[in-house]
Amino acid sequence: MTEEAEYKKAVLVICDGLADRGTSTPLSEAETPNMDRLAGDGICGLMHSISPGIVPGSDTAHLAILGGDPYEDYPGRGPFEALGAGIELKEGDVAFRANFATIDNNWEILDRRAGRFGSDELAEALNIKIDGVRFIVKHTTEHRCALVMRGKGLSGAISDVDPHDMGKVLKSGPLEDTDESRRTAKLLNEFVRRSHDILSEFQTPANVLLTRGAGEFRQVMSIKDAFGFDGFCVAGSALYKGVAKYLGMDVIEVEGATGRADTDLGAKADALLSHIEDYDLGFVHIKATDSKGHDGDWKGKKEFIERIDREFIARIIDIDAYIILTADHSTPVSIRRHSSDPVPVLMHGEGVRTDQVKAFNELTCAQGGLGAIHGVDLMPIIADYMGYYRMYGV
Amino acid sequence: MTEEAEYKKAVLVICDGLADRGTSTPLSEAETPNMDRLAGDGICGLMHSISPGIVPGSDTAHLAILGGDPYEDYPGRGPFEALGAGIELKEGDVAFRANFATIDNNWEILDRRAGRFGSDELAEALNIKIDGVRFIVKHTTEHRCALVMRGKGLSGAISDVDPHDMGKVLKSGPLEDTDESRRTAKLLNEFVRRSHDILSEFQTPANVLLTRGAGEFRQVMSIKDAFGFDGFCVAGSALYKGVAKYLGMDVIEVEGATGRADTDLGAKADALLSHIEDYDLGFVHIKATDSKGHDGDWKGKKEFIERIDREFIARIIDIDAYIILTADHSTPVSIRRHSSDPVPVLMHGEGVRTDQVKAFNELTCAQGGLGAIHGVDLMPIIADYMGYYRMYGV
Repeated sequence: MTEEAEYKKAVLVICDGLADRGTSTPLSEAETPNMDRLAGDGICGLMHSISPGIVPGSDTAHLAILGGDPYEDYPGRGPFEALGAGIELKEGDVAFRANFATIDNNWEILDRRAGRFGSDELAEALNIKIDGVRFIVKHTTEHRCALVMRGKGLSGAISDVDPHDMGKVLKSGPLEDTDESRRTAKLLNEFVRRSHDILSEFQTPANVLLTRGAGEFRQVMSIKDAFGFDGFCVAGSALYKGVAKYLGMDVIEVEGATGRADTDLGAKADALLSHIEDYDLGFVHIKATDSKGHDGDWKGKKEFIERIDREFIARIIDIDAYIILTADHSTPVSIRRHSSDPVPVLMHGEGVRTDQVKAFNELTCAQGGLGAIHGVDLMPIIADYMGYYRMYGV
Repeated sequence: MTEEAEYKKAVLVICDGLADRGTSTPLSEAETPNMDRLAGDGICGLMHSISPGIVPGSDTAHLAILGGDPYEDYPGRGPFEALGAGIELKEGDVAFRANFATIDNNWEILDRRAGRFGSDELAEALNIKIDGVRFIVKHTTEHRCALVMRGKGLSGAISDVDPHDMGKVLKSGPLEDTDESRRTAKLLNEFVRRSHDILSEFQTPANVLLTRGAGEFRQVMSIKDAFGFDGFCVAGSALYKGVAKYLGMDVIEVEGATGRADTDLGAKADALLSHIEDYDLGFVHIKATDSKGHDGDWKGKKEFIERIDREFIARIIDIDAYIILTADHSTPVSIRRHSSDPVPVLMHGEGVRTDQVKAFNELTCAQGGLGAIHGVDLMPIIADYMGYYRMYGV
């Protein structure tokens, strides 16, 4: 990197689960004049977030796309959720996704989501200490919480308490043959037992806390260390804020960014436009494309894509920065789950090799000048455009 | 490899830094009827010399393209330069790029290039022994030399003496916490001190020798071992000859091959045509496309590409061998440095799957039948065409 280099900014927009299957897709059928204009002036391609045939989770896909190693740097879902909920994690913390549930006297689940009830007060009551280990519970939305265990000698290698279905609450068990793993599982089981005692006092449907996705937090890399620039994140859902934080980005809270189809896309665009002045990279996450895929709602997915084009892309299209538009994975409406089909990606800005692609979708981008890349390739390519290149060799 | 196989020859032409950025490039705008004819009859694609987003050095890129592993087999720049200068290296030698410079009495640099002065006589005077370690200095061009330290227990993990700028001559220091690293740095510092005493006697601007790019030589693979065929190299610059030698190729010295824009492209073509009889693979390196990129000279780059087409490609186009034409990396004139943008590659010869690409450039080749490959893929593909394939499995 030379001292005199002129650095440029970049905006990375990830529409969750945007891509689909078939000969016509919600994206290919949607009216997206702004995305298509960017495609026409830019370079397009396909991206395998993890690698061909591997179905990405949203967490691993974002980790890779934002510059982490999806295998080496992945701490499990819990730490991302805890970071996204605003808990500052320390090296060695074990973090979980958690949710309030309703159980009967035999620990049989009556409602895994406690009627979608939860509150800060309930979460607060669960901040206890057992055998020197602190339990930190933070309420996020509805029945959802993040849980962190903080203390010496803990391990993230323990199984879920949440049975992910009806049935009896599970006992957490060690997933590794170590004292740390056994002790952590034992402490967590004791905590869950006590959560029932404590929550029952409140006389709400939420009478137990269930956990899943245990993961041990460790400080990995930051995008600043890895690429030389800083960044911020605009997202509605905790997970994506968490991945961004994990990689050293700042999280900008935006009123009206809900992570649902009712999200305020204009407010997210405005947040991007006002904060990009102070940062090198702006990362915006838009969730509802994925939700519509999971719902099997073809028309809803298409219409939400049109809203993204109209309410978000149109607003940022003339920004003085590289614009990169892509998805974390496909969520085809026909199968209502993530799939490994690669996602379209476009890069727009000074110097890109304009190709023949005139419309942004899964089918056209296969003809693009970028060819097929992997998720981990994206940030190095963006960094090189921005001027923060690292040369290997002389 | 079967006994009865009929082997074919191949010619690999690497135009340094040939590729560029943007919607029209020096290559896409240049009149290149011969390259385009090869593209029309051949198969084209894009190549990431190292991997997407990684900006290649010329050394690592050539190592990969010529069949080495750019991470495992890379010894640093010094050994390539020393080999290219014609020094025969032995296992354990530590080699450097070196240059004569002018310093004052306080070891402040007055001219990093000693007014571009150097001579064989000066270099000869620096062939001394310190503490059982032999210092071998060979003058190459102008102020440039190669330096080799030969002896037991040396390490390539030491820092540069050359400050790469004005200021004081640096002390080399160990880059690893080992006795070998510390001792090598100490010996080098003593050598640099003595170089000043010795060179000062000659009363020329060259009164010290500065070093950079230390690397330890070890015999890695040869293309003969790896692929089964032999090869030769035609190049003007030491580095490329050095990489070729490192991989076991012979270097053919060609009068008029300067590594600059004044190079005799016709002489290089003739050298290729006359020596390909005796070898399986001919590798030709052409440098000035890269230099024009570093100079930001769009027109000069375009015109030199036209010269390559007219004076080199036209002359070899009917050779009875596969022709592979590519670059080691992009050197866009807009940024005057290497970039990670992939390079175009074409392969011409019997049996290749002719694709729709009719012109050879960065934009058209993205549509080629070869798709996008990595630098390390190129030699195995060439080897298979030549008949020197290695089957994995039965």
